[in-house]
This record gives sequence, C-alpha cells and structure tokens, in this order.
Amino acid sequence: MKNIRLTLAYDGTDFHGWQIQPGRATIQGTLGDVLQRITGERVIVHGAGRTDAGVHALGQVAHFHTASRLTAGAFQRALNALLPPTIRVVQAEEVEPQFHARWQALGKTYLYRIYRSPVLPPFLHRYVLYYPFPLDEPAMQEAARQFEGRHDFTAFAAPAADDEEGGRNPEREVFGCTVARLPAGWSSLERFGFGQGEELLVVVRGRSFLRHMVRKIVGTLLEVGRGRLQPGDIAALFEARDRSRSGPTVPPQGLFLASVEYAEPWRAALASRRDAAPEPENR
Amino acid sequence: MKNIRLTLAYDGTDFHGWQIQPGRATIQGTLGDVLQRITGERVIVHGAGRTDAGVHALGQVAHFHTASRLTAGAFQRALNALLPPTIRVVQAEEVEPQFHARWQALGKTYLYRIYRSPVLPPFLHRYVLYYPFPLDEPAMQEAARQFEGRHDFTAFAAPAADDEEGGRNPEREVFGCTVARLPAGWSSLERFGFGQGEELLVVVRGRSFLRHMVRKIVGTLLEVGRGRLQPGDIAALFEARDRSRSGPTVPPQGLFLASVEYAEPWRAALASRRDAAPEPENR
Repeated sequence: MKNIRLTLAYDGTDFHGWQIQPGRATIQGTLGDVLQRITGERVIVHGAGRTDAGVHALGQVAHFHTASRLTAGAFQRALNALLPPTIRVVQAEEVEPQFHARWQALGKTYLYRIYRSPVLPPFLHRYVLYYPFPLDEPAMQEAARQFEGRHDFTAFAAPAADDEEGGRNPEREVFGCTVARLPAGWSSLERFGFGQGEELLVVVRGRSFLRHMVRKIVGTLLEVGRGRLQPGDIAALFEARDRSRSGPTVPPQGLFLASVEYAEPWRAALASRRDAAPEPENR
Repeated sequence: MKNIRLTLAYDGTDFHGWQIQPGRATIQGTLGDVLQRITGERVIVHGAGRTDAGVHALGQVAHFHTASRLTAGAFQRALNALLPPTIRVVQAEEVEPQFHARWQALGKTYLYRIYRSPVLPPFLHRYVLYYPFPLDEPAMQEAARQFEGRHDFTAFAAPAADDEEGGRNPEREVFGCTVARLPAGWSSLERFGFGQGEELLVVVRGRSFLRHMVRKIVGTLLEVGRGRLQPGDIAALFEARDRSRSGPTVPPQGLFLASVEYAEPWRAALASRRDAAPEPENR
C-alpha cells in the first residue's frame, strides 16, 4: 500500500464543507468518488482540517492509502482532470506509511479577509466579508494579541454539543493572531483601482482549533473595532466561558485554510508526536 | 429629465451577456428591472459595449434618463443595495443630457487573461483561459502588433449574419494590441505560490469592435504561440477575409471590458463627434 499526500486548494462556496455527508457535495466525498473512479478502490481521504460549509482552502493537506501502481504525479494529473475546477491538487507526493495529515499536523494557519471599501468588486463577493464600516484598527491589533497562547476557548467556539466530539477539551494553543492591512500584491484588482489597500486580513496560527473558533475570534475583533468591546475585555470573556458575550460567528466565505505545518521528514514528526502528544482535533 | 452615467463592474458568468433578452438574466435587463423598482419608471440603460455571455467588465460605462429626484450618489447606493453582488456600480454621476455612453465612446480597452501554470487555482477558473501549453511569446508579441491600425476585420470576427447589424462595415481601428506577462500585483494568489508570473495578458484598445473580434484575435495569437501560424501570416489573413483560416474564438470567461474612454467634458465630446463621426458599433 502506498500513502499519498495531497496539498489541496478549493473554493468552498458550492460545498457543504470538507466532511463526507450522504447526498451532499463535500470536498472529502468528491475526492473519494473521483479516487474510486481512478483506482477502482474504496478510498478514504483524511484531511488536516475539517473546513465548514463555504470555507475555502489554499493549502489543505490530506492523505490516502492505495494499492494502485500510479505515481503521485499521475494521481495529481488524473485528479485535476476529473475533479470539478473548484477543487485542485496543488501538489502530490508519496510519503511514509505512517504519515497522517490530521494527527501529525503541528500547526495550521487560517486567513480571514475583511473587505472595507464601499463597493465590493463582483469578483470578490464569494471570498471576503464585506464590512465597509469604520474600524479602530489599533484596538483590533491589541485585542488580537490577547488570543495568543494557551486558553480555554469555550467563549470563542460553537457550543460543544455542535461539535462531533462531545466531551472535547476546550483548551487550545494559538501561536499567533494578527490583524494586518492587505499586503501588497494580494488583490488581483488593485491595478484597476479596486481594493486600494482597503482590505484587512486576520491571520490566526495555532496547533488546532475548535469549531467556529477562528470565525468567533474575528467576530470579536470586529466588535472591538466598532468600539462595542475593548481589548481589555478579552481576558474576562475567556474567564466567563460564555459564548453569548463574545462577538458573532462571522460568515464562512471570508475564511481560508492557508497552510498546514508538519515536522519534516514525516518519520521524525511521528516520533516527536509520541513525546509531545498534541491533542487531536475533532477526534 | 436627468441623465445618469454609471461605471459598472460585473462578473458575467451567470448572465447571458449585456443585452436585454426576454426570459434570460442579462446585465442590461437586470439594471432596468432594479431601476424600475427604484424609480417606478420604465428605464432603458444604454451601455458602451454589448458584452457577450460570460464576458466580464471592470469599467463598462452606461447611462439612463430619469425623472427621479434622486441624486447620482443615491442611485449608486440604491442600485448596489438591490442588484445581485455580481453587478456593482463603481461610480455614478449626473451628466449633460446629450451624453450617450455608446455613441460618444472614443475608445475601449479589453483584457484577455491566459493562465499558464499547470494547476489552475480554483478561485480563477471563472476568470481566465487555462492554457498550460508552451507558447512562443516573442512571436505572439510580434503578431499582436500586426492587428494595430485600421483594417477590414472580417477574418477576425463572428460571421456578419451573427451580428445584429446585417450590413455592417467590417473596418475597425485598433489603437494598440499587446501581449504581456502578468504585471506585478495582478494575482491575488501570488503570495501563496500560485501564478508565479505565469499569466499572459492580451490588451486590445480600439475605437469599436466587431462581435467576437477580441476573442478571434486572441485565438489567432495563440495559434502563433503554438507555431501553427507565423506573425507574417496575419497580413494575408486580413487580405483573405476568411474567418475559417484565422484562430478559433477563445471562450468568454477570460475576457474583460476594462475601460471606456470619452472626451471630457461630455459636451465637447459631442461637438467633436459631429466632426469626426466615428462609426457607431452595433447600431
């Protein structure tokens, strides 16, 4: 059996999220169906992150085991020929049998795009939150830093009952949380006068995330930006563990799973995981 | 009566082109319906260019007459509130009664995007031609210059019978035709390793265009890029006036009406038009 690792980009607009669901178009289900056509085998694709409906990916990582004699490059070409254009295999490589996209992920980076100009370009409405209201950006930047470190994120997540993992541990570690103006070169429409730097990007990097955690963090940062919450309130929100007092869950279309980090090579990652034993996400 | 000039951007994917057609979603029809809701009047919106089904716009220009007391700014806000997110009013202003978006256009610029990398990002498939095959770019650049100037474009257009204007004059003037690598800052995904400069842009600027003219020019440039035609063959293609010998009509999704030029102020444009009398397009 081979173990094939895929790096995937997708437009989540028309999918009911990553995870396979009967009778619904999902990323995992679509990949499984196409791999069955290619290999004749029933293939299960394991992804690093279970993105929700409408959430996009630039660098989701997944793996699958197969008895096929196809090379990783042949899998990439066959998948890209048969998948809808909204799912692309950016990279494919054969990896050690022990590599697991979810269990061995050491970090994930999510981006959330907030579009600030009065007129939202028609080419972006699937990919940003349109938010043309005044925002106190320094306050948001200060608040963002409060999310860094290890915390009980109960106040910043979907209700535990909505999570597959009923008795989940609500502690998570955020490595970095920043609010930044659109870096140069981001907007494809800049040269036509769109954007004009009027796009805010929230970048959140962490080991793993509770369901809706990034979207609740962004919703809370927007409340800070509007002056309805202060950066100093974040600590009390963590303490209270009451999700009704934090900001709303912002819509999915602005969210991108940008990248997943692993120790290299994979075998070393596996060994270090035995020591560190990071908590599996959504087990 | 007021005359309101609109600058429009739209994603043409889900529309049957600019021009109103019974029972089909079109840009002109959608604008007319929404303006009727706003004003209670039956409003006809005149556009500078009749873009085909699937063609996009960054800076289409249109105008309409209305007895409404709303300001141009109020029209912009009301339109953007009621239109689908795939059509946006980028600018609105009240202009002289004589201004006509089509008759007074002195030039239009179209862009055609050709995506060259092996993996087409899922966010771009509606907006580019995916063409990952080798191309002789210097030959394409040389051929592009052959399209500049005044020519009989019969060989590079839809059959005359497909044009509304049966007895059209097939002469058109192209001010500029160039093939360029993606300028820095164009690709929204560059920073994630997508694109990597692997996008070609064909830029065609002219007074007016026959139906499918830009798409046939791009199709012919791609034949030159593949070595099936030589830059020196273009003159003979013009001469032969035989559309079956030029390149194919490339698909609409890579094409953008980027901008429309007018003399300023409008009143001066009108006066100069009486002298110059440029030929109306698609009368």
